[in-house]
Amino acid sequence: MTQTFSSLSEFRDILSDMPVPDAEALQAAQARNMQLTKPPGALGRLEELAIWYASWRGQAAPQIAAPQIVIFAGNHGVTAQGVSAFPAEVTAQMVLNFQHGGAAINQLAQTFGARMTVHALDLDRATADFTKVAAMSEAECIEAIQTGWDAVDDTSDLLVTGEMGIGNTTSAAALGAMLLGGAAGDWVGRGTGVNDAGLAKKVRVVDAGLTLHKQALNDPLEALRCLGGRELAAMTGAIASARAKCIPVILDGFICTAAALVLEKAVPGALDHAVAGHLSAEGAHERMLQAIRKTPLLSLGLRLGEGSGGALAIGILQGAVACHSAMATFAEAGVSDAG
Amino acid sequence: MTQTFSSLSEFRDILSDMPVPDAEALQAAQARNMQLTKPPGALGRLEELAIWYASWRGQAAPQIAAPQIVIFAGNHGVTAQGVSAFPAEVTAQMVLNFQHGGAAINQLAQTFGARMTVHALDLDRATADFTKVAAMSEAECIEAIQTGWDAVDDTSDLLVTGEMGIGNTTSAAALGAMLLGGAAGDWVGRGTGVNDAGLAKKVRVVDAGLTLHKQALNDPLEALRCLGGRELAAMTGAIASARAKCIPVILDGFICTAAALVLEKAVPGALDHAVAGHLSAEGAHERMLQAIRKTPLLSLGLRLGEGSGGALAIGILQGAVACHSAMATFAEAGVSDAG
Repeated sequence: MTQTFSSLSEFRDILSDMPVPDAEALQAAQARNMQLTKPPGALGRLEELAIWYASWRGQAAPQIAAPQIVIFAGNHGVTAQGVSAFPAEVTAQMVLNFQHGGAAINQLAQTFGARMTVHALDLDRATADFTKVAAMSEAECIEAIQTGWDAVDDTSDLLVTGEMGIGNTTSAAALGAMLLGGAAGDWVGRGTGVNDAGLAKKVRVVDAGLTLHKQALNDPLEALRCLGGRELAAMTGAIASARAKCIPVILDGFICTAAALVLEKAVPGALDHAVAGHLSAEGAHERMLQAIRKTPLLSLGLRLGEGSGGALAIGILQGAVACHSAMATFAEAGVSDAG
Repeated sequence: MTQTFSSLSEFRDILSDMPVPDAEALQAAQARNMQLTKPPGALGRLEELAIWYASWRGQAAPQIAAPQIVIFAGNHGVTAQGVSAFPAEVTAQMVLNFQHGGAAINQLAQTFGARMTVHALDLDRATADFTKVAAMSEAECIEAIQTGWDAVDDTSDLLVTGEMGIGNTTSAAALGAMLLGGAAGDWVGRGTGVNDAGLAKKVRVVDAGLTLHKQALNDPLEALRCLGGRELAAMTGAIASARAKCIPVILDGFICTAAALVLEKAVPGALDHAVAGHLSAEGAHERMLQAIRKTPLLSLGLRLGEGSGGALAIGILQGAVACHSAMATFAEAGVSDAG
């Protein structure tokens, strides 16, 4: 499953030729679900989730044995314009925190038995300020996509992508506005906690980016290159890689969803192997999820990033698949069906 | 912590003299939360949950090491009136299924590392039909409460109570209507899946129960005796027992919440040690949760009972407490705080 990209158009071509769910496993999982010892539909969305998971794994009764969390970190040129409540050096400091096991995502990975890898992307070299030039050259963008692609292990059976990058809600807001329309103000939020002046600055920065890069309006990968960041491009690559490997994905919050949105806009249906893990407190996340027609599994007011909301939803999917694959049928248990 | 009840009034007296959260642990947990390597509030409701849990456990940085699920099963005299889509013998069949590890709750217990015990309460002797007489004598009701109380292990650090009892949504609806007011139709739903005729029957049965037992209107424990069932009374006892032992509780769906409601109506604040695990698809659950001012952690359309929705939420609480207790502080990790 090794794949090397040398251009964005090569990556785009791959996206158009991706696996689809296994029709036989889908049918078998649907049939199995109807025989389990519960009233039909009584496990609600867990039933849909398990059947969806089974169809992507090509098994009527699959297991989740090897969930993986991949974290990408990148720095952003736009931070020079004061769009974040935290200084840019925090990105590298938090990477160390991930590596030493001290961040929220480390605890969640451990809670749900997920393997976690951390990928720092050229932190000493921020992307360019997208209000002045494109954030990345094509080579830089492809390199980040490739890092994301390669980070996904063939043997994983569930993927959560997370990120760290001071300034990246600004980048995600710009992508949302460019790919889905609406005013900058509809897409900008407080991120890690900017004040009103910081919020106004973010709106101006996004507006400037939209104006400068309007040639990318109908080219989602070009929009990613111009307005995104290395960690966003890496998530785009990782989510696509998971599709190629038939690994279901749980999306995290606003930044992760922006990276995923690039795929869906490039090739409709490119996110059929993904569910939304949670609804972020970053206001525009809801609008973005609606655009990709995903109903979040959780809504607990998280707005941390790092993959935290996606990781928290691993337990939901583990529970759904465990019920589906290990419950007794009416016949096996000798339980009477509805009269 | 052994406690033996010989009357409902003795149980009521115990409810009025229960532990409260540890003020010192609460303050220490709040202070700790502000030092963790994340923007303030970025873990949303996970932060509140962890602080609440810490306050009940009396520790600034607690762990969840021994979650327990207790399942109670009982049979209901009102099933003679055709209020369920399933025959009454299914209660005993499902108890066997629990014991053999084949039910949904078994898989969820395993997924989240919870110990699970099953308590079948006189299944060969259904409660009396509450449209004709009280469902239980005082001795029967106390015996069930005692079973619930004793089922909670002193060494558990989190409790989920679940139930199995064909006909028990009718019982729970009657309790909701009596303790919170409104028409029978506001509280009755399709349960395991009755048709329109079955639904109309449930409304008539609840109305008859409310009329016959109106003397219990201002006496929640008497309402439990007249309209409840053994598994409901056992859950009432178990949730109270957890409070006495400072064990936080995750409530399950409609039946469990009805059993909990009895405590809250008997002594306001009696459920301060409990959170709502999920919002059931059984329509009246939302109304009942609003009455006890609990916002559910999950809303995934489950309506199975067995403690399934509560068990699914164990992972959320585990994640919240793991983040709170094991994350590095800004000082420990050498991460810069907001500028």
